[in-house]
Amino acid sequence: MSAGTAAGGGAGRSGPTLALVGATGAVGTIMLSLLAERPDPWGEIRLIASPRSAGKLLPLRGGQAEVQALRPEAFDGVDIAMFDVPDEVSAEWGPIAAARGATVVDNSGAFRMNPDVPLVVPEINAEAAAQRPLGIIANPNCTTMSMIVAVGALHRVFGLRGLFVASYQAASGAGQAGIDTLYAQLAALGANPAPLGQVAGDVRKAVGEDQFGPFPAPLALNVVPFAGSLKDGGWTSEELKVRNESRKILGLPGLLVSATCVRVPVVTTHSVAVHAHFSEPVTAEAAREVLSTAPGVAVLDDPGAGVFPTPSDVVGTDPTWVGRIRVSPDDPRELALFLCGDNLRKGAALNTLQIAEMLAAAG
Amino acid sequence: MSAGTAAGGGAGRSGPTLALVGATGAVGTIMLSLLAERPDPWGEIRLIASPRSAGKLLPLRGGQAEVQALRPEAFDGVDIAMFDVPDEVSAEWGPIAAARGATVVDNSGAFRMNPDVPLVVPEINAEAAAQRPLGIIANPNCTTMSMIVAVGALHRVFGLRGLFVASYQAASGAGQAGIDTLYAQLAALGANPAPLGQVAGDVRKAVGEDQFGPFPAPLALNVVPFAGSLKDGGWTSEELKVRNESRKILGLPGLLVSATCVRVPVVTTHSVAVHAHFSEPVTAEAAREVLSTAPGVAVLDDPGAGVFPTPSDVVGTDPTWVGRIRVSPDDPRELALFLCGDNLRKGAALNTLQIAEMLAAAG
Repeated sequence: MSAGTAAGGGAGRSGPTLALVGATGAVGTIMLSLLAERPDPWGEIRLIASPRSAGKLLPLRGGQAEVQALRPEAFDGVDIAMFDVPDEVSAEWGPIAAARGATVVDNSGAFRMNPDVPLVVPEINAEAAAQRPLGIIANPNCTTMSMIVAVGALHRVFGLRGLFVASYQAASGAGQAGIDTLYAQLAALGANPAPLGQVAGDVRKAVGEDQFGPFPAPLALNVVPFAGSLKDGGWTSEELKVRNESRKILGLPGLLVSATCVRVPVVTTHSVAVHAHFSEPVTAEAAREVLSTAPGVAVLDDPGAGVFPTPSDVVGTDPTWVGRIRVSPDDPRELALFLCGDNLRKGAALNTLQIAEMLAAAG
Repeated sequence: MSAGTAAGGGAGRSGPTLALVGATGAVGTIMLSLLAERPDPWGEIRLIASPRSAGKLLPLRGGQAEVQALRPEAFDGVDIAMFDVPDEVSAEWGPIAAARGATVVDNSGAFRMNPDVPLVVPEINAEAAAQRPLGIIANPNCTTMSMIVAVGALHRVFGLRGLFVASYQAASGAGQAGIDTLYAQLAALGANPAPLGQVAGDVRKAVGEDQFGPFPAPLALNVVPFAGSLKDGGWTSEELKVRNESRKILGLPGLLVSATCVRVPVVTTHSVAVHAHFSEPVTAEAAREVLSTAPGVAVLDDPGAGVFPTPSDVVGTDPTWVGRIRVSPDDPRELALFLCGDNLRKGAALNTLQIAEMLAAAG
C-alpha cells in the first residue's frame, strides 16, 4: 500500500477503529467531508463499499484511502461500523459486522423499529444507545430528523401531545439519482416561461414520461405528494416513519402523529411545517427561548425582517433551523413552526457520526 | 367603434350587463379565457382597467373589445361588476360601482371579512350571496379556495372541528411578477448541477440579492415560508386569511384553523396538505364517496398506481383535485388529504365568474 493510500491506516493513532460502509454513496461522500471537518478521535478509518468500488481512492485525512470490498473479513478489528447503504444491504451485513465485534451505527430503515435496536438522536435520547443487545444502533430517517431535535427540546418543557407534519423534501433524499433527475428535468424544460393559462400535463410532456427517475411524477416546477412506498391505509412508508420513529425517539408510544410527505424541487435540505399540540400552554417567547438554548438547534425568527430558514440558505450546515414560531390565537397549547435541516448532514451522515463519536468517547 | 372592437357590445343580446375590472391583469386574462369557454348569458360585456390600459384591445366573443378606463361612469348600466384588482383599488372603486347600481363581485381582500359582505363559494354557501347590504360579494383568497370546496363537502357529513393546513403555493399567486421572477431565477441558476455538499447561500448569490421580485427570498430551487405580510403573533396575512375565511365560508366562527403558508417553485396551481379533525369518525372510503359526488371536486386517489394530484397535472382545469385520502391509525376522526387547485381559475377568476353567473341566473 503506497503512502498515498495509507491515509486511513491509523499508524501511530491510538483511538478506536472506524469503518464507513457505503463510502462512495451520496451520504458517504458527505461523511468524508464531516470526517475532515470534525475532531479525529479515531485510530484506523476503513472505507468499505460494494466490490465494484473496491480499489477506488477517496479523500481521507489529507491524503487518499483505498476502498475495500464489503466482505465479512473487512470488519475484523473494527470497533464501530457506520452503514450508509440501502435497507437490504444493512439488513444482511449489519449483523455480520456486529458478529465480528463491531458496534454498528446504521442509517438505513432496516433496524429502526426493531425493539432490540435503539434509535438515537444524541441531543434527545443519547442514553438509549447504552442498551443495544444486537450490537446495532439505528439512525432516524432524514424527514423525522429534520424536526425531532427541535420538537424533542420543546417536548421536555411543554409535554408533547400531538404532531401534524407536512414536509417539503429535497431531491437528494432520493440519493444522487434524485438530484440528477431534477437537473435533467429543469434542463429539458429550459428557461421558456410557461403560458399563463398553462395546460395540465405540459411539464409531464416536456420532461418525458419515462424521465421521472426515482420519483413517481415530474419534480421540476412541480411538487409530488408521495415519497417511499405505499403502506396500509393509504399512508406512505415515509409518513409512517415520521410517526413511528418520532414515537420511539421521544419515548411516547401513543403520540398522535399525522404526516404528509411531499417532494419539492429543492436539491438538498428538507423543510417541515409542524403544528404541535402540547399539554401545557406555550408562548412564542418561551418556545423561542427553549429552542435558542437547545443543542443542535438554531433559531432564525424575525419574519418582518425577512428572517426565517429556507433550504438554500441553510444547506451545508449542521443545525436544525427553526423559524416562524407562533402560537395559535385559538388555543395556547398549539404551536406552529417551520424547520429546515440538511438531509445529507444531520439528516443522515452527521447524526450517524455523532453516535459513533459518542461511542468512541464512552470507550 | 369598429366592428372589431364591438365584440363586448351586446347588441341584440338580452342578458345582464357584465363588467370586468382589471381585464389586463393575470387573473383578468384567465377570466377572458373562461368567458370564451363557458355559456354566455350576458348582454353587454364591458372590459375595464386602469387609464393607462384604456384603448387596448382584448379577445372577447370571437372578436376584440376595447378596454375602457376605470371611472365612475364606466359602471353606468352595469348589472354585475367583477373586480380582479389590488385591495386598495377594490376598496376605492367597489363602493363606487355599487352606488351606480352594479352588484360587485370582488376578488381582492378588501371586503372579505366585512360582516356586511358575504364571502361566497357557490358549491358551499351559495345562499349567503342573497344578503348583500352593500351590494358587494367577496371571493375568497386563492389558498383558502384550494381546499374549501372539498373540506366544506366533508364538513356537511362529518362535522369539522379543526384544520391543520400547510400550503405549497405557486409563483403566480403573486401575479405575473411572481412568474417572471421564478423564470428569471431559473435562468440565472442555469442547468448546472449544484455540488453535492452545496453551500448555504449559493442560490441566493447566483440569483442575485436584489432579484427576489415579489418574494422575500429566492424561490428557484427553494421554498419560502412567508407569503403576504406580517400580522399579530408572527402569523402572516395569508395564514390568517385561511383561518378567517374558512370560518366565515363554513359558518364556523370558532373553528380551530392553523395554517403555514409556503411558496414553492411552481408556476400555477396551489397545493395544500390538510389534516382535518371531525366530530364524527371517518373512513377513507366514506370520505372518498363524499368527495366523488361533491360538486367542484374531483378525486385522484390510487397512490399505488401513481395516481394523486400534482400541480403540473391539473393546472388549467376547474375542479379542486383531491388525493392521498387517509385516516389516522390513531384516531378515526383525523383525516389527511392532499389537494391541488388552479389558483388563477377556481382560486380567483372562476369562482368570481361562478358567483356572477349565479346572480345572472337569479335575475
